[in-house]
Amino acid sequence: MLLFAFVAISMAAFAQQALGERAQTSSPAINADGSVTFRFFAPLAKEVKVVSNEIFPVGHHSADMQKDDKGVWSFTTEPLKPELYMYNFVVDGAKITDPSNVYMIRDIASVFSVFIVGGGQADLYKVNGVAHGSVTKMWYDSPALNMKRRLTVYTPAGYEDSKKRYPVFYLLHGMGGDEEAWMSLGRASQILDNLIAQGKAEPMIVVMTNGNPSQEAAPGETQYGMLTPTTNLPKTMDGAFELAFPDVVKFIDTHFRTIKKKQGRAIAGLSMGGFHSLHISKQYPDMFDYIGLFSAAVTREGSKAEIYSDLEGKLKRQFSTKPALYYIAIGKDDFLYKANGYLRSILDRNNLPYEYVETDGGHIWRNWRIYLSQFATKIFK
Amino acid sequence: MLLFAFVAISMAAFAQQALGERAQTSSPAINADGSVTFRFFAPLAKEVKVVSNEIFPVGHHSADMQKDDKGVWSFTTEPLKPELYMYNFVVDGAKITDPSNVYMIRDIASVFSVFIVGGGQADLYKVNGVAHGSVTKMWYDSPALNMKRRLTVYTPAGYEDSKKRYPVFYLLHGMGGDEEAWMSLGRASQILDNLIAQGKAEPMIVVMTNGNPSQEAAPGETQYGMLTPTTNLPKTMDGAFELAFPDVVKFIDTHFRTIKKKQGRAIAGLSMGGFHSLHISKQYPDMFDYIGLFSAAVTREGSKAEIYSDLEGKLKRQFSTKPALYYIAIGKDDFLYKANGYLRSILDRNNLPYEYVETDGGHIWRNWRIYLSQFATKIFK
Repeated sequence: MLLFAFVAISMAAFAQQALGERAQTSSPAINADGSVTFRFFAPLAKEVKVVSNEIFPVGHHSADMQKDDKGVWSFTTEPLKPELYMYNFVVDGAKITDPSNVYMIRDIASVFSVFIVGGGQADLYKVNGVAHGSVTKMWYDSPALNMKRRLTVYTPAGYEDSKKRYPVFYLLHGMGGDEEAWMSLGRASQILDNLIAQGKAEPMIVVMTNGNPSQEAAPGETQYGMLTPTTNLPKTMDGAFELAFPDVVKFIDTHFRTIKKKQGRAIAGLSMGGFHSLHISKQYPDMFDYIGLFSAAVTREGSKAEIYSDLEGKLKRQFSTKPALYYIAIGKDDFLYKANGYLRSILDRNNLPYEYVETDGGHIWRNWRIYLSQFATKIFK
Repeated sequence: MLLFAFVAISMAAFAQQALGERAQTSSPAINADGSVTFRFFAPLAKEVKVVSNEIFPVGHHSADMQKDDKGVWSFTTEPLKPELYMYNFVVDGAKITDPSNVYMIRDIASVFSVFIVGGGQADLYKVNGVAHGSVTKMWYDSPALNMKRRLTVYTPAGYEDSKKRYPVFYLLHGMGGDEEAWMSLGRASQILDNLIAQGKAEPMIVVMTNGNPSQEAAPGETQYGMLTPTTNLPKTMDGAFELAFPDVVKFIDTHFRTIKKKQGRAIAGLSMGGFHSLHISKQYPDMFDYIGLFSAAVTREGSKAEIYSDLEGKLKRQFSTKPALYYIAIGKDDFLYKANGYLRSILDRNNLPYEYVETDGGHIWRNWRIYLSQFATKIFK
């Protein structure tokens, strides 16, 4: 047996590259009682805060951290309810992510540190010891938009080892989002893995498109480089995305084992994606049997695109072959609450049946994860 | 035509959630001469530095930023060579990422802000206007390790629309890495997209496994929660991963249109992944025709696993049917330089042919991206 002759090299020295750069403090620590302790090593800083829309009540978005004699700032919350939480630190006026926490989520141009307090609904957001689906980032051809575009496809556990056909759920993001938003902020693959494993949702394919018709793909994933993400994109909510949607359905039906009919297709989206779902589903009334509007942006100022005209008449035509589910969900504090009430009044006065869910809270991802978790259990049954 | 009755709502209010949280400064800005300006808004901070192993020469890892009268700290580099750069800010002693830059890469437990200065070799690391492959995160069954495990699969542009079979390149990470390392730090999908589009590499499937046999998946992607990543994992480099590797090959050959023979398989890895590639390829001499050792950790102190015994004899047996390519690459400053010299001396004295590449620099991702870019053009031809 040969032995190498040179000096012993420690195992740690084989680390890919960055070992030794590790943060010096552990943060966040989820304590046994559900409280959470944040820590941040900054001996020279004058003031450090934790800021979070989820942790603190509305109107109290931050808490002061206290410095110990080793220069470690810390703050411990009250016991927190099960939920996915996002937060930042503000160090002497500069908003940053927690350097001790490698788990981060981007929302448009902001990056937040994240953690999950498990239990109840929040257990759907965790990776659990269940069979996992596959998640693919791929590019499809959109002749209607004259570009190749990126999308995310979730196929359920067992898809690759089966010959059967699966229903398809098209899941659309809001303004400023892209084909990654439902996977990161929405925890879509975890929610679907868990609901399917529990037998509460049917195994289904979930397709997450990019709803910005001027954009090929998420920021950083295009030939235009590592741009700062923005909501200021041309052609948003002017009808182009909706009218190009059959390109997506055609691509998915060609490349996956799908149920290629109305009964095998659902569409839902949040905010702008709810607006898209509303208009796509009535523009193509034979395409989707399950429609979900999550905090939907049911108005659009300015655009005169033909697809947005005669909402009432087109909804009546769509409902002439009644969808299996028309689901509307909104938070009581959502700035779109009234707009959704107006949409419901149109449906009501024409006796067009829909399911209505009203939750606490406003125009926030907490609600959209809840609506997804509900809607996914109601489709393809 | 119906019009909604409530007050006009601005487009920006439809944003998914985070609009208005946007950073106040633009950073980094890549200037026309290739210099880069960093900016950071922190009016109360006393000292802000930029730190980077890539930007500054060895021994000078940081530069002081200067504050203007609006509280914005800034620093402009010399013109930088084309490369993917990673950096952090250090604010009053605390190392953070650049809050104005949403592009970040995790290396083990450290997170870095990143940017690319294009040109030359670095153009391979950019998303360009070429056909893009698909990237899938999926789970395979490993009976040998008695667990389901996650891996990343790149299929080249055209795979989905073809019926032909493709060669497979198994690409392994280093200690502290996982099935995401080559995609993030290694820019593997961009390098492959670009080399294939230029006709310099054959269209191929690339499989990126998790080389830590005690671990199901990357941190945060397992039922064990959002743990702090560590190199301190059990069973690393004890032979378990190597002996379980046929499970991976079987899964890929079953679920993808592969060329199921030696001529259609390559294996390469960096550091610990080079060690794995060395031992897997000689343990299964009929499996791989192309072998790449990138800064390979060609020693192992302590382990007495049978797979590591009789290196010389087993290499001679492996080379009795000469591999199409045995590629060894290392940087002149790598702490494993001598170890690789020792491996080469074994090959030399037995007249076992290999290709040897020596570059500047040490045990760093810049080199591993270069080695991948070279190796990928030499295989399956």
